[in-house]
Amino acid sequence: MNTKAFHTLSYGIYVLTSIKNDTPYGCIINTAFQITSSPARIAVSCNRDNFTHGIISESGVFGISVLPESASSSLIGTFGYKSGRDIDKFAGVHWTIGMETDVPLLMEESISTIECRVIEVLDVGTHTIFVGEVVNAEIHDESNKEMTYRYYHNELKGVAPKNAPTYIEKEATMETTELWVCDLCGYEYESMTNAEFEQLPDDWVCPICGADKSMFTKKL
Amino acid sequence: MNTKAFHTLSYGIYVLTSIKNDTPYGCIINTAFQITSSPARIAVSCNRDNFTHGIISESGVFGISVLPESASSSLIGTFGYKSGRDIDKFAGVHWTIGMETDVPLLMEESISTIECRVIEVLDVGTHTIFVGEVVNAEIHDESNKEMTYRYYHNELKGVAPKNAPTYIEKEATMETTELWVCDLCGYEYESMTNAEFEQLPDDWVCPICGADKSMFTKKL
Repeated sequence: MNTKAFHTLSYGIYVLTSIKNDTPYGCIINTAFQITSSPARIAVSCNRDNFTHGIISESGVFGISVLPESASSSLIGTFGYKSGRDIDKFAGVHWTIGMETDVPLLMEESISTIECRVIEVLDVGTHTIFVGEVVNAEIHDESNKEMTYRYYHNELKGVAPKNAPTYIEKEATMETTELWVCDLCGYEYESMTNAEFEQLPDDWVCPICGADKSMFTKKL
Repeated sequence: MNTKAFHTLSYGIYVLTSIKNDTPYGCIINTAFQITSSPARIAVSCNRDNFTHGIISESGVFGISVLPESASSSLIGTFGYKSGRDIDKFAGVHWTIGMETDVPLLMEESISTIECRVIEVLDVGTHTIFVGEVVNAEIHDESNKEMTYRYYHNELKGVAPKNAPTYIEKEATMETTELWVCDLCGYEYESMTNAEFEQLPDDWVCPICGADKSMFTKKL
């Protein structure tokens, strides 16, 4: 079996949100898809370990914010690689409450937002598929292209976090001499020459989560 | 609600297949996604009206062939807009039987193929989500890019068939003077000037399904 075939499936990049006691929660997912057009229903897949998973289970509502190609790596780092158990991910982010539900929705760095009420829940092991009836949908920015997982992977050199369904242990390429891994988010820096990583400036930070060089461990 | 927001979700284009009495069946879908990585599980969404839906329900196995950007419009027309009730869609197509199951898999015009055994079925109204355990996956063509729904829509000017979850009634753009619709597949030709459609050469055919001009009806 060649598991690289899984990487030929196409995905977007989304911030999945919900709310509890007026506190917003959210995480990045790559699986959101329309399943019926009338009535409009959308399904999302979320890892059970994500804090947002429990919040959606309790609230019965979720929001989807569709990220553009221009989404900042700090936004992706915060929502994709940190936990709402530890930090307020929405600090410094421009967001609002939905028109039809009280889910948080990103107003900047999103092309569009969709609000859903959960109508079915399917346990599929490590992940849960939430099927939602769409109660509102808005477009905020038609000038930007939506970020695909391919773009994130190829252009931004992003890697899937361990909770993602698409996560795989990385194999170094032939050209890689050293592999340095961010302890915080799992981002992998491939050095083509010895000492390339050490020679990065002291203020260099992880492009995904913003961790400094001391958070990296040499793996190869 | 702005339903155009649904078009900002990202999808690929796939041929979903199964088999009955040694006869291969298949249809085009845009929703296939990995839901867990260990064990590897993939879900697909299929309209209940598609003949392939019933075949998968009976056989308990399905195959996914991931289409490249270079996939021919005749392949898309055949698998996307015609029914296995009426024609043998696999005539003239290079395909094979899977290594682990007996599902048909496209060997040409596919980047990769994945074989699954159905482990869960979720009825979501007009569509069914089949969750499959992956039993084999192969890459055939690494040099090609996978076709996204955006590429199909923007570059090939393809439209979703009526059975697709992403189908919406089309609204003419401001520039459109006449709208001609293919009775067979629903493809919409937008004329920017009066008589533009009539002036197309007699041997012009629908770019999606190959129907000739006489199959088009003027809608605007």
